[in-house]
Amino acid sequence: MNKHAIQQLLTKVKNNELSVEAALNELKDLPFKDLGFAKVDNHRDLRNGFPEVIYCAGKTASEVEAIMTEMLKQDNNILATRASKELYQQVKKIAPTAVYYERARLIMIEKEVIAKTKSKLLVVSGGTSDLAVAEEAALTASALGIKVERLYDVGVAGIHRLLGNLDYLNEANVIITVAGMEGALASVVAGLVDKPVIAVPTSVGYGSNFGGLAALLTMLNSCASGIGVVNIDNGFGAAYLASTIILQLEKARKEG
Amino acid sequence: MNKHAIQQLLTKVKNNELSVEAALNELKDLPFKDLGFAKVDNHRDLRNGFPEVIYCAGKTASEVEAIMTEMLKQDNNILATRASKELYQQVKKIAPTAVYYERARLIMIEKEVIAKTKSKLLVVSGGTSDLAVAEEAALTASALGIKVERLYDVGVAGIHRLLGNLDYLNEANVIITVAGMEGALASVVAGLVDKPVIAVPTSVGYGSNFGGLAALLTMLNSCASGIGVVNIDNGFGAAYLASTIILQLEKARKEG
Amino acid sequence: MNKHAIQQLLTKVKNNELSVEAALNELKDLPFKDLGFAKVDNHRDLRNGFPEVIYCAGKTASEVEAIMTEMLKQDNNILATRASKELYQQVKKIAPTAVYYERARLIMIEKEVIAKTKSKLLVVSGGTSDLAVAEEAALTASALGIKVERLYDVGVAGIHRLLGNLDYLNEANVIITVAGMEGALASVVAGLVDKPVIAVPTSVGYGSNFGGLAALLTMLNSCASGIGVVNIDNGFGAAYLASTIILQLEKARKEG
Amino acid sequence: MNKHAIQQLLTKVKNNELSVEAALNELKDLPFKDLGFAKVDNHRDLRNGFPEVIYCAGKTASEVEAIMTEMLKQDNNILATRASKELYQQVKKIAPTAVYYERARLIMIEKEVIAKTKSKLLVVSGGTSDLAVAEEAALTASALGIKVERLYDVGVAGIHRLLGNLDYLNEANVIITVAGMEGALASVVAGLVDKPVIAVPTSVGYGSNFGGLAALLTMLNSCASGIGVVNIDNGFGAAYLASTIILQLEKARKEG
Amino acid sequence: MNKHAIQQLLTKVKNNELSVEAALNELKDLPFKDLGFAKVDNHRDLRNGFPEVIYCAGKTASEVEAIMTEMLKQDNNILATRASKELYQQVKKIAPTAVYYERARLIMIEKEVIAKTKSKLLVVSGGTSDLAVAEEAALTASALGIKVERLYDVGVAGIHRLLGNLDYLNEANVIITVAGMEGALASVVAGLVDKPVIAVPTSVGYGSNFGGLAALLTMLNSCASGIGVVNIDNGFGAAYLASTIILQLEKARKEG
Amino acid sequence: MNKHAIQQLLTKVKNNELSVEAALNELKDLPFKDLGFAKVDNHRDLRNGFPEVIYCAGKTASEVEAIMTEMLKQDNNILATRASKELYQQVKKIAPTAVYYERARLIMIEKEVIAKTKSKLLVVSGGTSDLAVAEEAALTASALGIKVERLYDVGVAGIHRLLGNLDYLNEANVIITVAGMEGALASVVAGLVDKPVIAVPTSVGYGSNFGGLAALLTMLNSCASGIGVVNIDNGFGAAYLASTIILQLEKARKEG
Amino acid sequence: MNKHAIQQLLTKVKNNELSVEAALNELKDLPFKDLGFAKVDNHRDLRNGFPEVIYCAGKTASEVEAIMTEMLKQDNNILATRASKELYQQVKKIAPTAVYYERARLIMIEKEVIAKTKSKLLVVSGGTSDLAVAEEAALTASALGIKVERLYDVGVAGIHRLLGNLDYLNEANVIITVAGMEGALASVVAGLVDKPVIAVPTSVGYGSNFGGLAALLTMLNSCASGIGVVNIDNGFGAAYLASTIILQLEKARKEG
Amino acid sequence: MNKHAIQQLLTKVKNNELSVEAALNELKDLPFKDLGFAKVDNHRDLRNGFPEVIYCAGKTASEVEAIMTEMLKQDNNILATRASKELYQQVKKIAPTAVYYERARLIMIEKEVIAKTKSKLLVVSGGTSDLAVAEEAALTASALGIKVERLYDVGVAGIHRLLGNLDYLNEANVIITVAGMEGALASVVAGLVDKPVIAVPTSVGYGSNFGGLAALLTMLNSCASGIGVVNIDNGFGAAYLASTIILQLEKARKEG
Repeated sequence: MNKHAIQQLLTKVKNNELSVEAALNELKDLPFKDLGFAKVDNHRDLRNGFPEVIYCAGKTASEVEAIMTEMLKQDNNILATRASKELYQQVKKIAPTAVYYERARLIMIEKEVIAKTKSKLLVVSGGTSDLAVAEEAALTASALGIKVERLYDVGVAGIHRLLGNLDYLNEANVIITVAGMEGALASVVAGLVDKPVIAVPTSVGYGSNFGGLAALLTMLNSCASGIGVVNIDNGFGAAYLASTIILQLEKARKEG
Repeated sequence: MNKHAIQQLLTKVKNNELSVEAALNELKDLPFKDLGFAKVDNHRDLRNGFPEVIYCAGKTASEVEAIMTEMLKQDNNILATRASKELYQQVKKIAPTAVYYERARLIMIEKEVIAKTKSKLLVVSGGTSDLAVAEEAALTASALGIKVERLYDVGVAGIHRLLGNLDYLNEANVIITVAGMEGALASVVAGLVDKPVIAVPTSVGYGSNFGGLAALLTMLNSCASGIGVVNIDNGFGAAYLASTIILQLEKARKEG
Repeated sequence: MNKHAIQQLLTKVKNNELSVEAALNELKDLPFKDLGFAKVDNHRDLRNGFPEVIYCAGKTASEVEAIMTEMLKQDNNILATRASKELYQQVKKIAPTAVYYERARLIMIEKEVIAKTKSKLLVVSGGTSDLAVAEEAALTASALGIKVERLYDVGVAGIHRLLGNLDYLNEANVIITVAGMEGALASVVAGLVDKPVIAVPTSVGYGSNFGGLAALLTMLNSCASGIGVVNIDNGFGAAYLASTIILQLEKARKEG
Repeated sequence: MNKHAIQQLLTKVKNNELSVEAALNELKDLPFKDLGFAKVDNHRDLRNGFPEVIYCAGKTASEVEAIMTEMLKQDNNILATRASKELYQQVKKIAPTAVYYERARLIMIEKEVIAKTKSKLLVVSGGTSDLAVAEEAALTASALGIKVERLYDVGVAGIHRLLGNLDYLNEANVIITVAGMEGALASVVAGLVDKPVIAVPTSVGYGSNFGGLAALLTMLNSCASGIGVVNIDNGFGAAYLASTIILQLEKARKEG
Repeated sequence: MNKHAIQQLLTKVKNNELSVEAALNELKDLPFKDLGFAKVDNHRDLRNGFPEVIYCAGKTASEVEAIMTEMLKQDNNILATRASKELYQQVKKIAPTAVYYERARLIMIEKEVIAKTKSKLLVVSGGTSDLAVAEEAALTASALGIKVERLYDVGVAGIHRLLGNLDYLNEANVIITVAGMEGALASVVAGLVDKPVIAVPTSVGYGSNFGGLAALLTMLNSCASGIGVVNIDNGFGAAYLASTIILQLEKARKEG
Repeated sequence: MNKHAIQQLLTKVKNNELSVEAALNELKDLPFKDLGFAKVDNHRDLRNGFPEVIYCAGKTASEVEAIMTEMLKQDNNILATRASKELYQQVKKIAPTAVYYERARLIMIEKEVIAKTKSKLLVVSGGTSDLAVAEEAALTASALGIKVERLYDVGVAGIHRLLGNLDYLNEANVIITVAGMEGALASVVAGLVDKPVIAVPTSVGYGSNFGGLAALLTMLNSCASGIGVVNIDNGFGAAYLASTIILQLEKARKEG
Repeated sequence: MNKHAIQQLLTKVKNNELSVEAALNELKDLPFKDLGFAKVDNHRDLRNGFPEVIYCAGKTASEVEAIMTEMLKQDNNILATRASKELYQQVKKIAPTAVYYERARLIMIEKEVIAKTKSKLLVVSGGTSDLAVAEEAALTASALGIKVERLYDVGVAGIHRLLGNLDYLNEANVIITVAGMEGALASVVAGLVDKPVIAVPTSVGYGSNFGGLAALLTMLNSCASGIGVVNIDNGFGAAYLASTIILQLEKARKEG
Repeated sequence: MNKHAIQQLLTKVKNNELSVEAALNELKDLPFKDLGFAKVDNHRDLRNGFPEVIYCAGKTASEVEAIMTEMLKQDNNILATRASKELYQQVKKIAPTAVYYERARLIMIEKEVIAKTKSKLLVVSGGTSDLAVAEEAALTASALGIKVERLYDVGVAGIHRLLGNLDYLNEANVIITVAGMEGALASVVAGLVDKPVIAVPTSVGYGSNFGGLAALLTMLNSCASGIGVVNIDNGFGAAYLASTIILQLEKARKEG
């Protein structure tokens, strides 16, 4: 329809309904404003129910409310990340169907059910302390329409727990590993499979962990190849990256 | 064939050719040694010509030679990364068909031509100083059988160069962005597309660049989602991660 | 009038109203105390209404109050930065006309209206979370008598928002870019214009953002030239630097 | 003339010499490629002789040569930064008039004399060890057409040297301070004047200097306002930032 | 008994009660799940009363309660580390015999008395501020069945206090040194003895202590050999490492 | 008197009142315990009223109370550093004459008036935000019997304030400079005098100040010689170091 | 024999062969000089052949030669660490039986054969690039009389290699793990055993490895307990720590 | 004589030999240039032979030569620090009496013998690798006229070496401790004495030593009070600081 707008303009010029100068003027800045080239959204093309996302950290409650009010006018699902329980109480007033996932600090407002993908995402986590981030990843992915499996509490301190669940690894198309402390889980998982592994370091730990730096460096320096790292505690980002891969997979399934 | 080995063993037990005790003994440690469960190699299943890889940094020339001599007995292609020109001279004596890519510091020995994938990888880089890493990524991906396009010298200091080449971005399935200095390229690219972006910070820069730390932090903290980061200067790792995604795509194409 | 003081002293010596020894004594330490050479204030020379500034962080409420009481005896405008709402409540008792800008944490007391400059400052910011710092810059600049425009929420994750507003960039004489997360906005803006760009990294972000370090390094290492960086979250400092440039511009306009 | 191209295209549509579809096609990607909006170059508009710049670090000699050969076809002056003496020897073969400044590691090829600005830049430096960076700044600024003064070896260890030269500070429009070790010079200078101060930390020092980090942090945290900081050892960047300010000044002089 | 399971399976094959295919299937993943090879627990083999451990940091009270409820069904002792007083109140409801050590933040539930080892562990600490970590180490070791001595408040600022207690050092088999500030105690102790010294840096200090980094680096760089370092404030880890050594000693005593 | 103890012991041996073996036994560990060689306290030798010191940070109120109760049995003055107001309330109950200095967080209990030294210490500070640390230094020094002068709010942003008070610098024997932000004050002061300058970086600042790191590095890398640096915010340590110097001076005055 | 010296002295006093004063004088400083309390060397007590060690880094060749010449006068074995090949050439002139281990950079001079311990040390390493450090550890331990096994090239990228060699882990008394890159090997090994694990991070890696920092932090933050960490590349220190443990084991074997 | 200059000027005004305007003009900038207030040099007042100092690092040989040639015109002694052997060869041509201290990298040219102070400086160092820095300190102090004692190789790994030499500590007025690795020596020394201790961390070490950072942090965080720290490897700075203290002592001796 942007193309359409230019077409109309050109037709008007052709029909002498618009002078060359006037057309020139309209064209000058138009491409950036209206062509909408940025983020050609494959997701939305492919899938209904793909949500709008609000990152709540650093925004006041009234700012979040204002943004959400605007979004609620449309029919999109809404996903609010890094949301406190207090914020949820306030959101519920304007969106009574909103659901809150406390550990993952997510608010979800589902207006339209999103069909799940055929491709599968596995979220693997080390210890129970990593649960908040792992759930942020799993629930976000689910909200993005991804089929999600969970394999939790399989840290390398007891590697038999991971090895006893190789089927999970084998059946996934994409794997997210969530781990704090030293974050060695990502290396071990990537050493066992040959598929994309997204690594999320968490800030779980203390002392020389330096707020997740230890796990971050571990994942960036892994001796096992095939790992893409996201920011510390960035469960959302991992899920989003997974969704870009999986939606390519869904497209590939259709195209052959 | 490992399965086969266990099958034979069980058959022997069944046929009383082997005592239960003796079988038990053989079985005890076997799974780890021989089942070969680790790295169920989708790549090799899918594609002939998938190379063996040697990381040359920190190995002496004679160590590399010894490993390569062993590999040459088989029919696999061979890819040696971080290889100096001197090393190449020595390798050439035992592998006369070896080719050297100086800027990318790669040695390739191709025994079997690998068919290129249908899915496409785009390698985007900022400045000409990032060329070495960008080429490591592009050539590695190519050696792994990936169809590769290059879009170089499109740093954000002159953003029209990137915007004038949106077609490249739109046609790729996976994008690798290679950038030093402040590494902002990854954010801009990920803001323009909705597909997996693999970001490689390079050590190009000086002063408060701290050997690539600036670009690394930029990429990890990108305000644009959908970015998986690898280690500084790790062109190989980016290509390998891309290959895990693209081979999932190829499988998806087949499976539908 | 300092010159005048020395002149008087010399005249007294000449007229034998003061002995050489006594004059010598007075002169010895005088230059540093009284010549007032430091900060020859072009600002005040050029513009009435230029405010006195109090940096409130690390000062107790009673200390701020004491300083302000002193300042209120003169006719200058007063600008208090990093001021909490509680502090404002207290200030209001001694300065009932004081106005508080909550997001920017600024208190302003305007006794004299300051005429705006002909030159224009543009404050550009990435996300809504950067608002506090952007407003500290914009409001400070305004209090310093600068004509200010704002272009907010144009982060590089959706670069069309920035590109659709090139007019703003083209019409400014000086640009302040305020950005957290990875801070790539500064590079993109400086790549689009050829005028002084002042970059303010913000502490917005988490994990490997390390309290604004990521954005700071990005801005220092920008591949685009023409950027001067100030401290993390230092909206005031950016505005002040902008004012030194713009007041040079105003002088140049007058001088020709 | 880009405007002209669109005008021609529209006229052709109007005259039915081009179909709407064909025009649409040409227009689609055109703005980014051809409108040349990026870096509307005030410098070139204002001043002949403004040079093309090559950053030589991380480029091979043959790459620099190739770029320069291309540039030499046009009539622009050329400035090559971070150039080794060896590189200069090679450059001289294709550009016999090239001049080399060893301490500043700059190659200059002047085809057209650039008239100096009315506004004045002062380059102040701490110790003789900072000379290389100070000269990179001064010579670059000069090559960009700026009138440059130098005030060297006035480090704060002997503050009378700086105080004895206040006239230099008072007569400049923009000041660049270059200092290594602890970099306190920038604070002292900015405390004495009320004009834009560009601070360049140098890597001069040892131990806990950490390659210039000490001076960088000093300059970013200055208790004196009005300082814009550039990367460690970035004499070029400081000069370029100064030139964006000074060319605004020159424009202001003309416009009034 | 895992061995037993495989034996039964093989016997069934032998007796034709199970087909080779079915046996093969069962065997495939079995080793990792059931052989229980990981952590062949010498401790439990050697000593009754060896406790189960819960690391409480980052777990919600209800999560700790759930884990503990499960553990209480068995007869093992239980040790909960990094436990707040609030948590203890809650634990006491389900385990009335639980004891709380406030400074060490430990909860202990002793169901079975553990006999103390013949080998001796000495816990040495610098200042009274290090007490919390020192006690975490001493009490943990004690709960693990180790004979523990304490030598506190012998920091190097008054080295005669340490030198006056050499007997303690001489009689221990393993020494844990706990120290904050600059952590020099570990070096001095290791210089006085020729036995394993486990060094625990604490986060006691301020400023350039950087949360224990100073003591950590001191201990890693000690000019005295024979020091193994654990994470900052990791009293538990030090005690656990000591227990692995001491239980080897107990075994050696038995074996001769 | 320790000498005396050994003398007695030897005399007993001589007089056959004690066997050689028994004497040997007593001597073995004696030197470390009783010779009291450590910290031969010149201070106490020289000056009555020299206080005992308690560092309160990281100690519980009851621990401080216990230590103080013990000290109160003797006639020494007592100085408690890093003491909160709450702690003071509690201390007052057992030591009603205790005085609290809120900004400096010091509790002092003076039982005996300490005569002031002839040598003079000057405490110089940058901004009013550094007051807490400057006062910790000044009051501590005073409690240690040092004659103290203060020169506050003379930061380098307005260097005339420092230069207008050169007399203070000239009359002191030792100077403590306290400064946050970029900490340049130490360099400027040390550049003006030729006497020992003790530099205390403070944690005053934000962003890339990194909790005082900026000022710390500035002071360690000063281009002016003659500076000894103590830990960030360590006003006490600076005063103590000053007292070691000044008490040497007092001794030198006596000895000639 | 020190005891003996005091005994003689006391006897002389008793026999009036020495005055009390003279004895007192001799005793005063004696304990520190002569009691030889420091490093009561269990090693030498237990085992002949225990070597003297020279750390060659930072010493000139002539300094090493001087130290060695002195040592050669006694009958001890000598071990020189961090020795270059050039140094070895020089050493060989004065010690013709000296042997050089190039990869481990060790020189050994064995004058007396040292009997191996009953307890066993296992040195496990990740990749072939870690060989230098692993061999420094293994050869040092061997020189210290320890029975050493090696298990190399079992990095976690192919975890089946480690799992296939569990026997090695099970049979050792102490384990040294040597790993660079992300250093996850230590965690996996410590998760598999219940015996002391000494972890040596190596500087093998690049980019965000930061010279071994990544592996160091991994090892300090391991989610598996029972790990003592030594400095980056400190193979010697790991072996020495192992020897302190193993010699305690040997003593325990004797004592029962 | 500066006072004198002003006196003359005033007298001329008085005698009408100079107009008030002319005098005013001369006075305006004079104080900073000529009063010579900076660095009122107690040293030179007190002692003949006090040398001029050249810091050679970062200066070219011809720059050093130029500076020295200028200095040689006067009768001062000259001390050149961080001087390479090559530089010395060149210096010797213009100053044949120059002496070179290779380990300390110092060139000394003594024109006048400087009498040694009564006060004594002790330089204590840890290992032989710290010799270069220790000697830079000791020789510099000696060149500054200080009486210097040395106590080398008394690192804390064998603390009896230090304790056996307490007399050295007791007899000094000021102590410089030079130590690399973990730098614990400073803490132990400051714990033993009650006099000013100047601590010099050295860059001796590897791995997590981070070029001297470990020792630096140790010294800044010492639990023993009375330590002033200088930059890593800054032997010169330590000696200079010591000289400022000792010259105060000499003055105190005279004044009484």
